[in-house]
Amino acid sequence: MNTPFPFSAIVGQDQMKLAMILTAIDPGLGGVLVFGDRGTGKSTAVRALAALLPKITVVEGCPVNSQRPEDCPDWAHVASTKTTQRPTPVVDLPLGVTEDRVTGALDIERALTQGEKAFEPGLLARANRGYLYIDEVNLLEDHIVDLLLDVAQSGINTVEREGLSIRHPARFVLVGSGNPEEGELRPQLLDRFGLSVEVRSPDDISERVEVIRRRDAFERDTEKFLRKWQREDGKIRKAILAARDALATTRTPDAILTDCATLSVALGADGLRGELTLLRAARALAAYEGATAIDRDHLRRIAPIAMSHRLRRDPLDEAGSVARVERTVADTFG
Amino acid sequence: MNTPFPFSAIVGQDQMKLAMILTAIDPGLGGVLVFGDRGTGKSTAVRALAALLPKITVVEGCPVNSQRPEDCPDWAHVASTKTTQRPTPVVDLPLGVTEDRVTGALDIERALTQGEKAFEPGLLARANRGYLYIDEVNLLEDHIVDLLLDVAQSGINTVEREGLSIRHPARFVLVGSGNPEEGELRPQLLDRFGLSVEVRSPDDISERVEVIRRRDAFERDTEKFLRKWQREDGKIRKAILAARDALATTRTPDAILTDCATLSVALGADGLRGELTLLRAARALAAYEGATAIDRDHLRRIAPIAMSHRLRRDPLDEAGSVARVERTVADTFG
Amino acid sequence: MNTPFPFSAIVGQDQMKLAMILTAIDPGLGGVLVFGDRGTGKSTAVRALAALLPKITVVEGCPVNSQRPEDCPDWAHVASTKTTQRPTPVVDLPLGVTEDRVTGALDIERALTQGEKAFEPGLLARANRGYLYIDEVNLLEDHIVDLLLDVAQSGINTVEREGLSIRHPARFVLVGSGNPEEGELRPQLLDRFGLSVEVRSPDDISERVEVIRRRDAFERDTEKFLRKWQREDGKIRKAILAARDALATTRTPDAILTDCATLSVALGADGLRGELTLLRAARALAAYEGATAIDRDHLRRIAPIAMSHRLRRDPLDEAGSVARVERTVADTFG
Amino acid sequence: MNTPFPFSAIVGQDQMKLAMILTAIDPGLGGVLVFGDRGTGKSTAVRALAALLPKITVVEGCPVNSQRPEDCPDWAHVASTKTTQRPTPVVDLPLGVTEDRVTGALDIERALTQGEKAFEPGLLARANRGYLYIDEVNLLEDHIVDLLLDVAQSGINTVEREGLSIRHPARFVLVGSGNPEEGELRPQLLDRFGLSVEVRSPDDISERVEVIRRRDAFERDTEKFLRKWQREDGKIRKAILAARDALATTRTPDAILTDCATLSVALGADGLRGELTLLRAARALAAYEGATAIDRDHLRRIAPIAMSHRLRRDPLDEAGSVARVERTVADTFG
Amino acid sequence: MNTPFPFSAIVGQDQMKLAMILTAIDPGLGGVLVFGDRGTGKSTAVRALAALLPKITVVEGCPVNSQRPEDCPDWAHVASTKTTQRPTPVVDLPLGVTEDRVTGALDIERALTQGEKAFEPGLLARANRGYLYIDEVNLLEDHIVDLLLDVAQSGINTVEREGLSIRHPARFVLVGSGNPEEGELRPQLLDRFGLSVEVRSPDDISERVEVIRRRDAFERDTEKFLRKWQREDGKIRKAILAARDALATTRTPDAILTDCATLSVALGADGLRGELTLLRAARALAAYEGATAIDRDHLRRIAPIAMSHRLRRDPLDEAGSVARVERTVADTFG
Amino acid sequence: MNTPFPFSAIVGQDQMKLAMILTAIDPGLGGVLVFGDRGTGKSTAVRALAALLPKITVVEGCPVNSQRPEDCPDWAHVASTKTTQRPTPVVDLPLGVTEDRVTGALDIERALTQGEKAFEPGLLARANRGYLYIDEVNLLEDHIVDLLLDVAQSGINTVEREGLSIRHPARFVLVGSGNPEEGELRPQLLDRFGLSVEVRSPDDISERVEVIRRRDAFERDTEKFLRKWQREDGKIRKAILAARDALATTRTPDAILTDCATLSVALGADGLRGELTLLRAARALAAYEGATAIDRDHLRRIAPIAMSHRLRRDPLDEAGSVARVERTVADTFG
Repeated sequence: MNTPFPFSAIVGQDQMKLAMILTAIDPGLGGVLVFGDRGTGKSTAVRALAALLPKITVVEGCPVNSQRPEDCPDWAHVASTKTTQRPTPVVDLPLGVTEDRVTGALDIERALTQGEKAFEPGLLARANRGYLYIDEVNLLEDHIVDLLLDVAQSGINTVEREGLSIRHPARFVLVGSGNPEEGELRPQLLDRFGLSVEVRSPDDISERVEVIRRRDAFERDTEKFLRKWQREDGKIRKAILAARDALATTRTPDAILTDCATLSVALGADGLRGELTLLRAARALAAYEGATAIDRDHLRRIAPIAMSHRLRRDPLDEAGSVARVERTVADTFG
Repeated sequence: MNTPFPFSAIVGQDQMKLAMILTAIDPGLGGVLVFGDRGTGKSTAVRALAALLPKITVVEGCPVNSQRPEDCPDWAHVASTKTTQRPTPVVDLPLGVTEDRVTGALDIERALTQGEKAFEPGLLARANRGYLYIDEVNLLEDHIVDLLLDVAQSGINTVEREGLSIRHPARFVLVGSGNPEEGELRPQLLDRFGLSVEVRSPDDISERVEVIRRRDAFERDTEKFLRKWQREDGKIRKAILAARDALATTRTPDAILTDCATLSVALGADGLRGELTLLRAARALAAYEGATAIDRDHLRRIAPIAMSHRLRRDPLDEAGSVARVERTVADTFG
Repeated sequence: MNTPFPFSAIVGQDQMKLAMILTAIDPGLGGVLVFGDRGTGKSTAVRALAALLPKITVVEGCPVNSQRPEDCPDWAHVASTKTTQRPTPVVDLPLGVTEDRVTGALDIERALTQGEKAFEPGLLARANRGYLYIDEVNLLEDHIVDLLLDVAQSGINTVEREGLSIRHPARFVLVGSGNPEEGELRPQLLDRFGLSVEVRSPDDISERVEVIRRRDAFERDTEKFLRKWQREDGKIRKAILAARDALATTRTPDAILTDCATLSVALGADGLRGELTLLRAARALAAYEGATAIDRDHLRRIAPIAMSHRLRRDPLDEAGSVARVERTVADTFG
Repeated sequence: MNTPFPFSAIVGQDQMKLAMILTAIDPGLGGVLVFGDRGTGKSTAVRALAALLPKITVVEGCPVNSQRPEDCPDWAHVASTKTTQRPTPVVDLPLGVTEDRVTGALDIERALTQGEKAFEPGLLARANRGYLYIDEVNLLEDHIVDLLLDVAQSGINTVEREGLSIRHPARFVLVGSGNPEEGELRPQLLDRFGLSVEVRSPDDISERVEVIRRRDAFERDTEKFLRKWQREDGKIRKAILAARDALATTRTPDAILTDCATLSVALGADGLRGELTLLRAARALAAYEGATAIDRDHLRRIAPIAMSHRLRRDPLDEAGSVARVERTVADTFG
Repeated sequence: MNTPFPFSAIVGQDQMKLAMILTAIDPGLGGVLVFGDRGTGKSTAVRALAALLPKITVVEGCPVNSQRPEDCPDWAHVASTKTTQRPTPVVDLPLGVTEDRVTGALDIERALTQGEKAFEPGLLARANRGYLYIDEVNLLEDHIVDLLLDVAQSGINTVEREGLSIRHPARFVLVGSGNPEEGELRPQLLDRFGLSVEVRSPDDISERVEVIRRRDAFERDTEKFLRKWQREDGKIRKAILAARDALATTRTPDAILTDCATLSVALGADGLRGELTLLRAARALAAYEGATAIDRDHLRRIAPIAMSHRLRRDPLDEAGSVARVERTVADTFG
Repeated sequence: MNTPFPFSAIVGQDQMKLAMILTAIDPGLGGVLVFGDRGTGKSTAVRALAALLPKITVVEGCPVNSQRPEDCPDWAHVASTKTTQRPTPVVDLPLGVTEDRVTGALDIERALTQGEKAFEPGLLARANRGYLYIDEVNLLEDHIVDLLLDVAQSGINTVEREGLSIRHPARFVLVGSGNPEEGELRPQLLDRFGLSVEVRSPDDISERVEVIRRRDAFERDTEKFLRKWQREDGKIRKAILAARDALATTRTPDAILTDCATLSVALGADGLRGELTLLRAARALAAYEGATAIDRDHLRRIAPIAMSHRLRRDPLDEAGSVARVERTVADTFG
């Protein structure tokens, strides 16, 4: 809608930027939850990252942004075979959204006026090959979050109702922002997000001044500001594309698997999703940094964002969950 | 949707795997409830078991997967008599599902456009001859659970409304997963499930490493991984098919009936569903292991999964219900 | 749907069986409430009793099971005058049922497509001349219970809405089961049920073994089991039919009327429905046993099932209501 | 529906019978509230009274039971001018009734199929010139009670919605029964009922025996029972008709007005509806008993049924409201 | 509907009668809230006042009672230019009324059958140039009260929905009655009513006798009673009409403005609506009494009805708000 | 609707007037929240400001008030290219408004009758280029407030549902009034408003007299009153227009950026929206006063209205948030 802010011009917030970059390298990581203060640019960052990625090639008129005509769903009756370039889509999920609007539904109007059972694609169709952003995910109804996580995991949206039996690709990265003070996600749902980060307003005056200066400059002369940060954004884009290629060949030493399991047990995390994500995210980080194998330092850095939302609450331990992860990492890895 | 993980490659979780195998031998056992931590592969196991079973023969286009054209319901107007092979169906019941989508309903669109009262089959039709999986069954509305248990027990789905009077076969095994920390089923409903198991994340590091290793291997090269576990899956399949045949001839000594009743009274379980299930499940286990008659050891092993969800809560006894069953079995059988 | 279990093969549960037999002799007694543990065969018993009764003669296609064409409602446009034999109907009332489905309603589909105001009969039509079974009646909405009791009492279903003005016969015996631990009926509604019984799982091991043995035998070879119990069922059927004829001539000594009133006052039961039911149920019992007049022993045996659900709760008296009735009977009759 | 019980055969319950007779003499008294135990024949009494009154003459097919064709509403398009005799109508208001069904509404079906805006009359139309009976009025929604009282007072039902602008006569006596233990009416609504009575089950054994005997006799041979009580009912009917004629000429001494006001102030009743009702009901009683003027004894006997539901609750006075009225009457009149 | 009681025959209740007369002189005062006991004739008074006012001239068939054809709204398609005389309308707002019925809405039936988007006027249209009476305004939903106050203030009803964009005149005086014991209006809403009065049943016996006597006389011979009070009503009517003319020329001394502000501050009333209403109501009173200028005595008498509903509740001051206003007036003006 | 009161004739309330003027200079500031007592002229002020601004040029029939035909949305099918002058729109958001009415929705009537999928624009369309006023914003549902803030920020209304995919410009200033005693906005929403002011009724008698005098004069002779204040309004208008032009050239010294950040940290405000607004509002103030650069005094004066609604509640600090801001400003800037 509006021109996105350059990703590289975001001041600080390194954990959030790292988590987003990792999802761009391995979209199968399972989405990101961003907790934290209001006004810290969560939505800005998603849009910025998507704008930084290379444009995608899509068949004209294809409702799911497919690259090849044969991948457009039958129900869409896409006639054209011409393709066009489009920015990576970022779809916003409004609060109070209904399941219909998310998954798509019977096109009532066509049913009534033309006696035809046609499918009206929803937000999931539009998000294919891109990002789905949910502001204040903790205020969304559970069954919608559940549905989104299901589709995000399988990459396929299945609609079975009102006489429709529709499937279409819906591969996207889910990014949810939440303010833990305003309600919480059920642990069941938390666990299904891949990564989580906390963001805070900077305390440092000069950092804040820099934020205001850049934001003010951006608003007063957008064109000039974009030109200035173009090169920085380009570097990140290149690193992401290189990492995507490197993923398949990055090695996983056996000791790293043991490290993942040991850390997970030490943290008392339920289930095994945590250590699987830890492994994959560490691999993406290794690839991003050009390493040929995952090492302990990768795990160490990834652990807080892969594990902190999977801890059981411990009423006797007043430290935040990130601190608890860091402490356990230190205890475990020495 | 996605390729299922091989059943035999599931690490540990022996009780859950046993319960699922028993339902494959005697689908009349009344479904399985799987309680426990998130991320422990409950959904994975159902899909894996179904994928391991031999394909079923179904008439093409038959909405209830019937094997013979004469078994396809009239309302389906199935013209073809050709059959095809399909995997045992696994149907997922989404949270927040409405009764319409479960049972099927009037096809509104056809009614409006063609003035025809046609039946739109629901999830129960699709689940015939297969599995119906409910994630977090404790969050489902009671009347839906009730309806599912009714149909699961009778094997017939009856729809009487909106001028429709429809019956169709709906024989399936109900598998529900639940996290007891997030709400409970009414005892009335609990009692109608045949078996129950608890699953936990393994505490053993090497077991966890094995889980990650297999999962990571599966995701990185699915084909290769499937080939590797094919033979193990085949053995289990063969044992299940043999047990199905043996069921009718497995003997039930009178002492075993007394044991069932004695144990049930000792456990203070309401009603008589518990001991009936104990008997049938023990018979399925005996058949699976090639025994010609049920013996006490079969009961001993089956008791926890057939009885633990039928105990009244005892606020003075802090042991979990599985432990209480095991203790009572020990006290009773010596 | 499934073959019913033979009534005479039900082990124990004498009070419940007696109450059901009485409703078969005098359907005007006002239904039965069955309280108690789950899994004690409440639903089984209703179906068994109905299956034991002689088949009824019904006009083909008549929606209310009438015996003579002239008794079929006009709105049904029953063309045929042929009759057929059908088992006594047992209709199940699902939890969460809407008033529409109970009473019948405008056939929306015909209204929309053919511009015709047709009546879609409901469950009450189907229950005419039979039994209406409500599992967990305490979970049903009050206004539905109220409606059911109204129709059960008057024997006529009146539908006045959506431009319909329909009346049809709906004579049935209401059988409700309930678990008092899961919610209670309002005293106002309790009082309108004729009889009530409590059922419990047997504590006696040999009785339980007998239950399992019979149930298992029934499930493994249904045909053989039915043949075995056929004669016992026949005896009960004959006694019921004889009692129906004898009802009109069974005498009511004046002392019995005084006994009814005295007992009711001693029990502190509100209203006069209790003693009227006591009288009628005792008369049915007398007729069933071939007595020519009601005597005190009949009252004594009937009192618990006719009166115990009409007592006001007494927080200082810890005895159950059945025990309180029995104690009061003993005090009053000596 | 079923044959009503004879009014004169009702044992005891004199206050209730008196209140009902008064409403038959002066239907403008504002309805009766009957409080009390269940099973005390409240509904029976209304039906019995209506059956005792002379039949009314109505135009055939007139939806509001009008006596003359010119009084049938235009919207009813009553073609016939023939009249017929019908019993005084008694209309039951079911719990959970919607405003639509009470007042009448747009006939949706005719609107949809014939494009005609027709009025579907409701229960108020059917109750014209008769009785409207509400069982458990305290469980009805306030706005419905309000609406019923409005119409009962004005005698006209006005429907203004969905493009309809309908008025039709709806003169009826409202009889509400309630169990004060199950919820209360707002004082605002209580005050708008004219009379109130409390009924209790009799404590006297011989009275109870008489109730059972008559009820049993009625049920066993209805025709014979009706013949037996015909003459008694005839006497009451004659007295009511005579009283209706005498009402206009019954004198009201000035001292009686002062008595009404003094009593009302002494009772601390809000508003002035109480003393107006006291005056009118005493006049109806005087007329019923053939007196030419109201005297103190009439007031004394009427006060409990005209005033007791208008008292403010007094937490320090444990006596019931009837007793408080009687005590105040004794204090005031000596 | 029924013949209204003569305004001048209402016994006592001077404050209520004064407030109503003031709204007839200056309809812009903002409505009246009448608090108090039930049965004190609140509704009677509104109807009586409206009946006393001269008839209004309206175009035949005009849904908003306009005086001139050019003032009838376009959407009404009023063809006639003939006018007729009608009583000042009094519209009742039923409890539980929906916004649709208040404001008017799309005529669904015409939309469905004739494909025409027509406006169905609501109660606000009918109330134009008259009174809108809300019984128990405290039980109405806030947003409806809000809407009514908005329209009452602007004199225009605007409907913007369902594709309609309708405006029509809706100048009326809002009269709300409320029983403060049954729920309260939000201060925000209270403040938007112009005047408020409290009514109580009279304690004086002779006054009460007079009320009963007149009411009874009215009901027994309405025509005679109306003739008797005709002249008194005529006097009030004349005084109101004279006051309307005098309003524009009644002077407002500067000291009176200061008095208004001083009093308002002394009372601690929020906002400035109070003193503005005080000024206007005092001016209407002055005009009614033929004074050429407002003086302190006018303020003194008006203050209780213009200010008492605007006080903040003071838990330490047990006096009612009217008493608090009177005390403050005495303190301020000496 | 009614003639607005002149902006310059509003007595006192300087903060509110300043905040509104600033939004007229820089509509991107993010709306104003006005807290405070009822009856303090919040709604009056918005209308007054809009009436003071120069009329806007709009294409005839354009639903979003566009200035040029090419800016009218396609779906509006605006044929005319003629323009006309209209006052700056002020749109009121009624309490209880639905999302449909806010955003616009499918025109159901056209869909049904003409088989056409047309867009029915909502309040956001009408508010384009003007003001959207929400009385009692704290009583509005959160998701509506959220939606309004989203659109206000982006300037574009996007409707994606019911088969519609509509975008149209919706640039407006959001003005919300609220009474903190009646419920609160979530901090998340508060923070998204640009400015906030508190208003109180004046305590000064002469100021109040002046308010009454002006208001009374306005109501008695509106024309004369408007003529009197015309010149004052003109001065403010001219200053606003000049400030709009000056905004782009007003300088921002580096020290001012540091001041903004320092103040925000000192106040402990979450996020960075506060200091960005502080900067922009100070710049608008500087421009309004003809300064060439922002200085500390601008910040000092702006801080209370830009920051006070962003403070976390501090239970130990009893001072209001405005006082806390002023104190912190004093501490920080000396």
